[in-house]
Amino acid sequence: MIKKTTIRDLAQAAGVSVTTVSQILNGKGQRFSSETQLHVLKLQKELNYVPDFNARNLILKSSQSIGVLVPNIGNPFFSTFIKGIQTTARELQYFPLIFGANHDEKIESYYLEKMIERSTGGLIIASASITTETIDTTLKKNGIPYLLMDQNPIVDGDRVQTNDFEGGQLAAEHLLSLGHQRFAITMPSKPTANLLRRVDGFKQTLINRQIMFDQVVTIVDAPMTKAGGYEATQKVLASEATAVFAINDEMAIGLYRGMRQQGVSIPTDISIMGYDNIDLDEYIAPTLTTIQQPILEMGTMATRLLVNRIKQPLIAPQVVDLPVKLVLRQSTDIPKKTKV
Amino acid sequence: MIKKTTIRDLAQAAGVSVTTVSQILNGKGQRFSSETQLHVLKLQKELNYVPDFNARNLILKSSQSIGVLVPNIGNPFFSTFIKGIQTTARELQYFPLIFGANHDEKIESYYLEKMIERSTGGLIIASASITTETIDTTLKKNGIPYLLMDQNPIVDGDRVQTNDFEGGQLAAEHLLSLGHQRFAITMPSKPTANLLRRVDGFKQTLINRQIMFDQVVTIVDAPMTKAGGYEATQKVLASEATAVFAINDEMAIGLYRGMRQQGVSIPTDISIMGYDNIDLDEYIAPTLTTIQQPILEMGTMATRLLVNRIKQPLIAPQVVDLPVKLVLRQSTDIPKKTKV
Repeated sequence: MIKKTTIRDLAQAAGVSVTTVSQILNGKGQRFSSETQLHVLKLQKELNYVPDFNARNLILKSSQSIGVLVPNIGNPFFSTFIKGIQTTARELQYFPLIFGANHDEKIESYYLEKMIERSTGGLIIASASITTETIDTTLKKNGIPYLLMDQNPIVDGDRVQTNDFEGGQLAAEHLLSLGHQRFAITMPSKPTANLLRRVDGFKQTLINRQIMFDQVVTIVDAPMTKAGGYEATQKVLASEATAVFAINDEMAIGLYRGMRQQGVSIPTDISIMGYDNIDLDEYIAPTLTTIQQPILEMGTMATRLLVNRIKQPLIAPQVVDLPVKLVLRQSTDIPKKTKV
Repeated sequence: MIKKTTIRDLAQAAGVSVTTVSQILNGKGQRFSSETQLHVLKLQKELNYVPDFNARNLILKSSQSIGVLVPNIGNPFFSTFIKGIQTTARELQYFPLIFGANHDEKIESYYLEKMIERSTGGLIIASASITTETIDTTLKKNGIPYLLMDQNPIVDGDRVQTNDFEGGQLAAEHLLSLGHQRFAITMPSKPTANLLRRVDGFKQTLINRQIMFDQVVTIVDAPMTKAGGYEATQKVLASEATAVFAINDEMAIGLYRGMRQQGVSIPTDISIMGYDNIDLDEYIAPTLTTIQQPILEMGTMATRLLVNRIKQPLIAPQVVDLPVKLVLRQSTDIPKKTKV
């Protein structure tokens, strides 16, 4: 294997000192003749010399990288979110390091520690299982700038959030307007703060119409994945709900499979709606009614706020609220008994 | 913002020198008393001191990280592939840096350069648009260990590949066995080496049965995404094919949407099969017949081979072949006119 070209090789080839090369490559070569500067830059190209980041990093005292922790890279919600981060980071000349924790707290701690070791300039944390304790002991104590997404516990600091309460309200209003009276909500057994707000919004809409939440809504616990939705099918059917509010689109897609296998037709026999508006929603049959989150924009805003914070550590906490909306498609309809 | 705890803070708290702390934390503290060693380690925990990676990296001369470049994080094929890499890298104590190039050559070059700057220990390249020239000038010249996936151009070096030729044969044999005589293949206009091998395999099976490929197969150009498959619908229908071989599952899912909108029923009116066997295939209706690639294992093997190479730069080129197989589901059937 050929050895990596070093700054020493380049200095030798150019017939100048290592310091001279270093200053020219770092844009501080004013005191050398333009011939010398051009000569060094030309040789850098010819020899394909790429400055070593670890050495330069110690000099520049900034790693220019940001760490990104998500619960699951495989969920289209997070791959779109990551796309927003990568695009914006590139524009702002930061380098995003992406980690998927597979919903596992141990893996998450492992990655957090590694990111801090590497002097990551800052962190975007969308992984749900981080605790307030980890934030206090590991992040605050080490002085690492970080930004939390709305899955995370409520603590001071920068945050990008969408209006989950309103999302839950929109879901309930839509299903009530179709005439549904019995509901199932599928969600994980340890829901994060934002999921609880969706349920609270749903509940508030029922209360406003003097309907007792506990009497008409069955909560069905299952993981927030396609497999989780599939696995929830029997309990949803047993609840005699005519409409399901799946807490994310992936679960709704899992329910589609389960209902099909049970010969239950959507939306004729049961209405199903999701949450997120991932691109797949338009590809499945029937297309999925859902609450839209501005996923790409969430990634963009998270990156902008974090870079602001890295550059200006002392500014006041930044909080960005992004809107949600109902996207009407084919998976919800009036309940069966109302049809003739 | 609180300042990060430094090795100096720790040394001061422990009442010893920075060198002493450094040696103890790097497991080289034998010459100090066990009390001193325990005292420093205890204080490290209390003060939450995390050693700075950039400084340590210069000392250890190895970054212990591997860069991973994929064309598209959003494709479930690649998110599963990444999961395999992350799990194996953690086992082998390496730290994977993941980048999605969004099928854009410029972004790819940008990430490649950044990864080399950061002294990434080695690279796994599954991004299709890398050129032989980039490999020669940027990777070989800098002496960076790398491993290519089968999307990449054929060059010497380590490689993980699946038998695409056989995959194409299995697809053709399956469709022929059902009685199909006219076919469409949907694929990108600039196919990578592995996609061409799939088509070659398909062709060989026809030749073996004395069928002229050009007379019975229409190639429909479209991007390898859901949107690409959707957009290919009209041309597929115009070709009068009774069976479609979509070059990946994402395209097949796009065709499902297009066919549905045209009132064309799968598999009654047209048979569709994909390639990859992503987990979504079992969730869509009808479930998708496809050729399975061992995606998770591809990520695992790629990581193992690359780490071998990093540790033993002089071993002979390593090539791993992984098997493919036909997965029969509901999206393929006998052609319509054969049915009564």
